Amino acid sequence: MKISNNCKLLIVSTSTVFGKPYLSYLNDEIPHFFDGVEQIVFIPFARPDGITWDTYTKIARNYFTSIGIKLKGVHEFPNMKDALRNAQGIFTGGGNSFLLLNTLYELGLIDPLKEVINDGTPYMGTSAGSNILGQTIGTTNDMPIVYPPSFDALKIVPFNINPHYLDPHPDSTHMGETRETRIKEFLVFNNIPVAGIREGGYFRVEKGNIQYLGDRPLRIFKQGEIPFECLPNEDVSFLIK
Amino acid sequence: MKISNNCKLLIVSTSTVFGKPYLSYLNDEIPHFFDGVEQIVFIPFARPDGITWDTYTKIARNYFTSIGIKLKGVHEFPNMKDALRNAQGIFTGGGNSFLLLNTLYELGLIDPLKEVINDGTPYMGTSAGSNILGQTIGTTNDMPIVYPPSFDALKIVPFNINPHYLDPHPDSTHMGETRETRIKEFLVFNNIPVAGIREGGYFRVEKGNIQYLGDRPLRIFKQGEIPFECLPNEDVSFLIK
Repeated sequence: MKISNNCKLLIVSTSTVFGKPYLSYLNDEIPHFFDGVEQIVFIPFARPDGITWDTYTKIARNYFTSIGIKLKGVHEFPNMKDALRNAQGIFTGGGNSFLLLNTLYELGLIDPLKEVINDGTPYMGTSAGSNILGQTIGTTNDMPIVYPPSFDALKIVPFNINPHYLDPHPDSTHMGETRETRIKEFLVFNNIPVAGIREGGYFRVEKGNIQYLGDRPLRIFKQGEIPFECLPNEDVSFLIK
Repeated sequence: MKISNNCKLLIVSTSTVFGKPYLSYLNDEIPHFFDGVEQIVFIPFARPDGITWDTYTKIARNYFTSIGIKLKGVHEFPNMKDALRNAQGIFTGGGNSFLLLNTLYELGLIDPLKEVINDGTPYMGTSAGSNILGQTIGTTNDMPIVYPPSFDALKIVPFNINPHYLDPHPDSTHMGETRETRIKEFLVFNNIPVAGIREGGYFRVEKGNIQYLGDRPLRIFKQGEIPFECLPNEDVSFLIK
């Protein structure tokens, strides 16, 4: 499996890092990534905290307006498929991955979204919006609050994503599974590499290349291998080869 | 919705509390609950850490042998449905709820299990084994490592269970959703009360009554209501009325 040479992706772990306003830690990256884009189409279906599509779109619009880019919710267009096909850039926000994927299936938007991303429309996802770029949503942290027709995701990248990757708290007395244990259980049943992206980290994919950026290392899990760390700017091309 | 008067259940949040051997914190409760039972049928399908059915059965057998009760894995019988129908007592261990439920569906064991529990076979579940007693597995903490044919669970109790319920760490800088946020998102889409059982807590259900026991309060979530706490031994009969 490979990645389309046309793909232009920003695969972000979290929209918000502790103590900073929404997306602001990416203030250098986002305008550069969406260079030349006048208007973003926003996909609000992950509905964090159960907020409405409209409310979520306003939050995203506030940010993008502040960096000089217009933003419109995909549901604000007369035809959502056409909205994606004509988009100059797409942003999918975080929330619940089951709800996001289920809504994309319900509205028949999986294939149009795959097509435009593979054809080169710049796509940025945060959290659940990143999760759906992988092979399946099988490594989401979210609760299964709705039952989607499949766990198959957009399959844009040949690996799975675990956003908000979390190391165990050293003083924890909690006996629930650690994130690492959960991902290892996934690998018992699925031969798909998993990128555990800690908050603050992200991938930039462009012209068939992938870069890992941010301020903390990335953790990679593969079936039958010991998990390992990759530093920002380290070569992670093995993920797409 | 009500609960069958015949049901005899031990709905346990976690098999293991910090610093103590497997199930040992329930050493007073379990022999009393399974009083008169000579042999337990164990359901090992949740496979924590991906261990095999045999390995998991050995772990459970070691504990039950130590309290003078024989234990046999349901897969060690020539016919699993008959094994459940003839069981004197049933224990389902924790692990991954998606895998547990999926395996029960695949093996055609959902209906036989529902029948014997509703007919009065004493049933104890820990973690995922408790989760499946609810209406759906929609409030599990587990990763969706396999795709079950439905999220519908055994529907023995008229509410959902969130085992290993976890309060936010006061010093946390992590931006992933808290457990409470996740359950509130569930309630936006599902009108099913949720019992968040902290580690160390459990329900005992018998003769149409439900008791909450353990050393920490229970947290209850209902659609359109502010979540609230119930102390051990407080009246929680509203959960089954």
